[in-house]
Amino acid sequence: MAFLDDHYLLCGATSEDIYGQIRDLPIIDAHNHCDVKALSENRHFTDLWEAEGATDHYVWECMRKAGVAEEFITGSSRSNREKWFAMAEAFDRLAGNPTYEWIHLDLKRRLGIDELICKENAAVIWEKSMEILQKPEMAQQSMIRQMKVEVMCSTDDPLDTLEHHKALQTTMGSTVRPTFRPDRAMNIFKPDWKDYMERLGSRWNTPIRRLEDLLAVLRKAHDFFAQFGCRASDHGLNVPYAHQVAPAAAAAIFSRAMAGQALSEQETRDYMAFMLNEFAELDAEKGWVFQMHIGAVRDVRASLYEQIGADAGGDLSDHLTDYLSPLLPLLNRFDGRLKTVLYNMNPIHNATLAQLTRAFGYTVSLGLAWWMNDSYQGMKTQLEYAGSVDLLSNMAGMVSDSRKILSYGSRHEMFRRTLSNVLGGMVDRGQMPKSVADRLAAWLAYGRPKQLFGF
Amino acid sequence: MAFLDDHYLLCGATSEDIYGQIRDLPIIDAHNHCDVKALSENRHFTDLWEAEGATDHYVWECMRKAGVAEEFITGSSRSNREKWFAMAEAFDRLAGNPTYEWIHLDLKRRLGIDELICKENAAVIWEKSMEILQKPEMAQQSMIRQMKVEVMCSTDDPLDTLEHHKALQTTMGSTVRPTFRPDRAMNIFKPDWKDYMERLGSRWNTPIRRLEDLLAVLRKAHDFFAQFGCRASDHGLNVPYAHQVAPAAAAAIFSRAMAGQALSEQETRDYMAFMLNEFAELDAEKGWVFQMHIGAVRDVRASLYEQIGADAGGDLSDHLTDYLSPLLPLLNRFDGRLKTVLYNMNPIHNATLAQLTRAFGYTVSLGLAWWMNDSYQGMKTQLEYAGSVDLLSNMAGMVSDSRKILSYGSRHEMFRRTLSNVLGGMVDRGQMPKSVADRLAAWLAYGRPKQLFGF
Amino acid sequence: MAFLDDHYLLCGATSEDIYGQIRDLPIIDAHNHCDVKALSENRHFTDLWEAEGATDHYVWECMRKAGVAEEFITGSSRSNREKWFAMAEAFDRLAGNPTYEWIHLDLKRRLGIDELICKENAAVIWEKSMEILQKPEMAQQSMIRQMKVEVMCSTDDPLDTLEHHKALQTTMGSTVRPTFRPDRAMNIFKPDWKDYMERLGSRWNTPIRRLEDLLAVLRKAHDFFAQFGCRASDHGLNVPYAHQVAPAAAAAIFSRAMAGQALSEQETRDYMAFMLNEFAELDAEKGWVFQMHIGAVRDVRASLYEQIGADAGGDLSDHLTDYLSPLLPLLNRFDGRLKTVLYNMNPIHNATLAQLTRAFGYTVSLGLAWWMNDSYQGMKTQLEYAGSVDLLSNMAGMVSDSRKILSYGSRHEMFRRTLSNVLGGMVDRGQMPKSVADRLAAWLAYGRPKQLFGF
Repeated sequence: MAFLDDHYLLCGATSEDIYGQIRDLPIIDAHNHCDVKALSENRHFTDLWEAEGATDHYVWECMRKAGVAEEFITGSSRSNREKWFAMAEAFDRLAGNPTYEWIHLDLKRRLGIDELICKENAAVIWEKSMEILQKPEMAQQSMIRQMKVEVMCSTDDPLDTLEHHKALQTTMGSTVRPTFRPDRAMNIFKPDWKDYMERLGSRWNTPIRRLEDLLAVLRKAHDFFAQFGCRASDHGLNVPYAHQVAPAAAAAIFSRAMAGQALSEQETRDYMAFMLNEFAELDAEKGWVFQMHIGAVRDVRASLYEQIGADAGGDLSDHLTDYLSPLLPLLNRFDGRLKTVLYNMNPIHNATLAQLTRAFGYTVSLGLAWWMNDSYQGMKTQLEYAGSVDLLSNMAGMVSDSRKILSYGSRHEMFRRTLSNVLGGMVDRGQMPKSVADRLAAWLAYGRPKQLFGF
Repeated sequence: MAFLDDHYLLCGATSEDIYGQIRDLPIIDAHNHCDVKALSENRHFTDLWEAEGATDHYVWECMRKAGVAEEFITGSSRSNREKWFAMAEAFDRLAGNPTYEWIHLDLKRRLGIDELICKENAAVIWEKSMEILQKPEMAQQSMIRQMKVEVMCSTDDPLDTLEHHKALQTTMGSTVRPTFRPDRAMNIFKPDWKDYMERLGSRWNTPIRRLEDLLAVLRKAHDFFAQFGCRASDHGLNVPYAHQVAPAAAAAIFSRAMAGQALSEQETRDYMAFMLNEFAELDAEKGWVFQMHIGAVRDVRASLYEQIGADAGGDLSDHLTDYLSPLLPLLNRFDGRLKTVLYNMNPIHNATLAQLTRAFGYTVSLGLAWWMNDSYQGMKTQLEYAGSVDLLSNMAGMVSDSRKILSYGSRHEMFRRTLSNVLGGMVDRGQMPKSVADRLAAWLAYGRPKQLFGF
Repeated sequence: MAFLDDHYLLCGATSEDIYGQIRDLPIIDAHNHCDVKALSENRHFTDLWEAEGATDHYVWECMRKAGVAEEFITGSSRSNREKWFAMAEAFDRLAGNPTYEWIHLDLKRRLGIDELICKENAAVIWEKSMEILQKPEMAQQSMIRQMKVEVMCSTDDPLDTLEHHKALQTTMGSTVRPTFRPDRAMNIFKPDWKDYMERLGSRWNTPIRRLEDLLAVLRKAHDFFAQFGCRASDHGLNVPYAHQVAPAAAAAIFSRAMAGQALSEQETRDYMAFMLNEFAELDAEKGWVFQMHIGAVRDVRASLYEQIGADAGGDLSDHLTDYLSPLLPLLNRFDGRLKTVLYNMNPIHNATLAQLTRAFGYTVSLGLAWWMNDSYQGMKTQLEYAGSVDLLSNMAGMVSDSRKILSYGSRHEMFRRTLSNVLGGMVDRGQMPKSVADRLAAWLAYGRPKQLFGF
């Protein structure tokens, strides 16, 4: 079997047959970090580094780990061409990591470039890609269509005017939808939180002085997002504090913070928990999906954060993060009336999380293996375990979480192949009939996200 | 390969050959939740829902997760027939979960019904089963004999008069044995604990006023259980508090609780730890097996607990539960003189627990993958890991933990096939000779529990 | 396939081909507990128990777990022959544990004895081995050469005069190198710590009265080790306390301890953290590799510790051990300027640790599956997961950690076969080209440790 050939990640005739049935289904990608502006402008990528490296901290981390100097990764002194060459030279050392597979898949499937990425081929790939990327069918909207993306949801701040989403409706209908991501309104511990309140008030022509002002503005933004086809909110949380806090107590903490007073850790948590419950309430009212991405411990490597900033690499997860005590109050409060999806970043949380979603029935679902779990290994482990405890049919389906358009297809391909591998294995072990596996594969690859999010 | 055919869960000729040697060995099932009264009355099941769904919260959770309304699960407004139809209609959505396999196996092996459970077949299966379940060989005692159950141990409160066990001795000899499960005497934090003290005193004609009265009564019950062939106690514990507490201190806590005074968390733990050590002492004296089922966090979903009560679903486990600090004092105190079996509910505890049982030598054994670990996936993961750290030959063997008689055979079949898969894999990888694997398979499937429990 | 034949642990033609390319590469074993004195004397093993059982607590624990009485394991009342017979008799019950494979491999590969270890063969193996062990080629230095050991690093206290290392330079060149392991200088909580200060002062003719004296002496020892080809330090830590403590604060704690005053837990941790940072600084200056073996909870079984002492078995690891908070300060302080290798003992730490090493780039590497992870199962799990998150090419390569010379070859064979299995699996799934896997295999089996440690 050869690298990335038709058998890639499949484990025999059964899984190959299953994959054959789902490979060409449209893509629904309910969570990613797409650059909506670039997409609405239907831009072309200037070069391969811009398309593959410039916006993707997964690539940066792999390059650092392979010993590439920072100037060839995020430095301003080096050209995109030099960065591509540095990446190609180091690429052998990435083998085994999904980034090695994704980027090869991107080249192969999207650009039709079959060469192995390595020092020897760096120049030829660069030249070929420069030519290909300028072709009309390589405009970003064309790429999205070629990948059969039926729906893709960006991640947006309540500040956002969604003008690019609006523009895209003309050319792409309801394909590109926003997701309501109000982390900055919740992250009261951040130095720029007060400034953010100011900006949010301006955006919505409502000076924010008290907590009720903030809640009113957020509701306006939530309503506004709905007009653009938004069907979900998303929340990035290290620990998912979600205990019940009285509005008056939350309002007092809010006022203290606005007055510039320091908050205790408990006050910070109380405020965050209160807000998370408010966001859940908004989603419950509209029947949106409430997504929690849990467990990212961010910016632990000081040198990166100081030199480059957030989302530069230097993020990880801790298996000691508590899920149960913080989450139970919210899950009980909204029991049966809020579509909830839980994503975990540390595979050690797979078990507790699958048992938790099992306990809370139909409306609480596992999100697919996220971030560092998003690999053949990570997805297979999660699917096999979660299937044994929870129901596969209740999972939320694949989201790419990708920061670059070129890789949507590759991410979903890796998922669909892994899913076919897992289900094919179950059929081959006599654990379910092939016909049932066929339906389950199509359901998780397409039907389920469509039904869950209501696209 | 077809669904549940002869190759089910086996991974090639070696594992098939191993399974062929153990498939027909008698069953020893040292821990389950059998309805002894129904068995002693040699009842027939009225219908398929009573046999498969009515008593099994695994089924309930899967149905909820598949979107079935509660009235079709535990509601009193729906007939058993309606519930069966609701289950059959949803059954496709359970694929991947062991419940999907177990119930199909039950129908196939016990009732001779080969149809796939689904909406289309709901009626035909119901009709067939109504007829079959009334046949003489479907009386519960006959079923037990057909499954070749040599020993099965129920789970019983010290209050129990064991009259049904007594009755069963006439018809089934020493097949059905009680297990001493004194959780209620330990759970001083529960609202009905004081009432339980009252009932326990009445049962044993010994008013319980002081701790020493309770200990005397428990010893009487322990002796009484011994007369019915009991060879083990069992203890359900979230955190296994087992530190050493002076009798006088425990007696003072006991007296405060009896006087209706509120206990601190530490007092509650101290009392529970003291009692657990006392139970261990009773078992050590008689050479019984001391079983701890650790890590169930119960009744987290408030709506279920309030509407249905305990054991309704809504239970899970937390990977953050501490095993080491609480358990070490007991393991050291009873080192070498108490047969101990430790069961964990969260697979994340597999590693620490296997290393712990390794450290404490011959008398401390791993129990097989429990509750949510009890699946092909869960057992395989545990066996492969535990074998690499601890000794497979020292494990305690399979227990079904089942709440329904019809499924004993299926549970043990899944275990025996998984065991054959794991050992066959080891032989195929050259890690042990086939002859050694053959002996180990028969040992774990039958010889080991017989020897460990002394049946 | 037969027990330990050529296909052992390999999963098809691809992995067999990969293994064929690395099986005969020289061995670099950068961490073990070799008896340097015995090696420098080029001793023969008196018998099979001395070679295989006498120094290896892995064997002891397996024997206890299999029910062998302690007198036949560590007792002084039984002869080596009796102990070997006890082990052989119990050996069947070890199947599945890597010790079962390692000892069979040792006999097969080193002594040319093919018999299965069991009761029936105990005598014949003993007789054969007595003859073989006395042959000239069974002298310890010859064994090392036959196993193609290019470099092996012992584990040595700063007290050590390294006379045996010196002697070995004459006969074996730079093959045998010391590793700087100053745990005893750090373990201020141990009762013999003050006595150790005394001994260390004497060794280096520098009375140790203040912290700065200790630091000066440790620097002298560090320099001295360098003369003997030392290229690494090693640190055994339960929790890796590594926060930043001011020198004056550390000096005050030191002085209090020297004055016989009791330290608080926080003081103990502060001192240990300070010292760990100092050791890191020494390594950073010389470009050595800083190795941390994290997570061993030692001597939990009181009966063993009281009767036999440390390293008797009774050690384990706890999945609840915190890695992140303690380690981050050190990793940030030495970011980019200290070659660091992190080893974990509990597989539950694989995920957090792989994500941590990913975050800190090129100079921070994962050590291979250690102690209870050191098995086919443990290594495969780690390699597959770590490869999906971190880079395989950045891992530190195999170390045996072995307490007996006879087993170096078997340990490295098990690793190389497992590595070939993992990489062969990736090639077979189309995740990397065969040529890339070939290079990666040779790199991890030989090139990487050579480059990392600078041998």
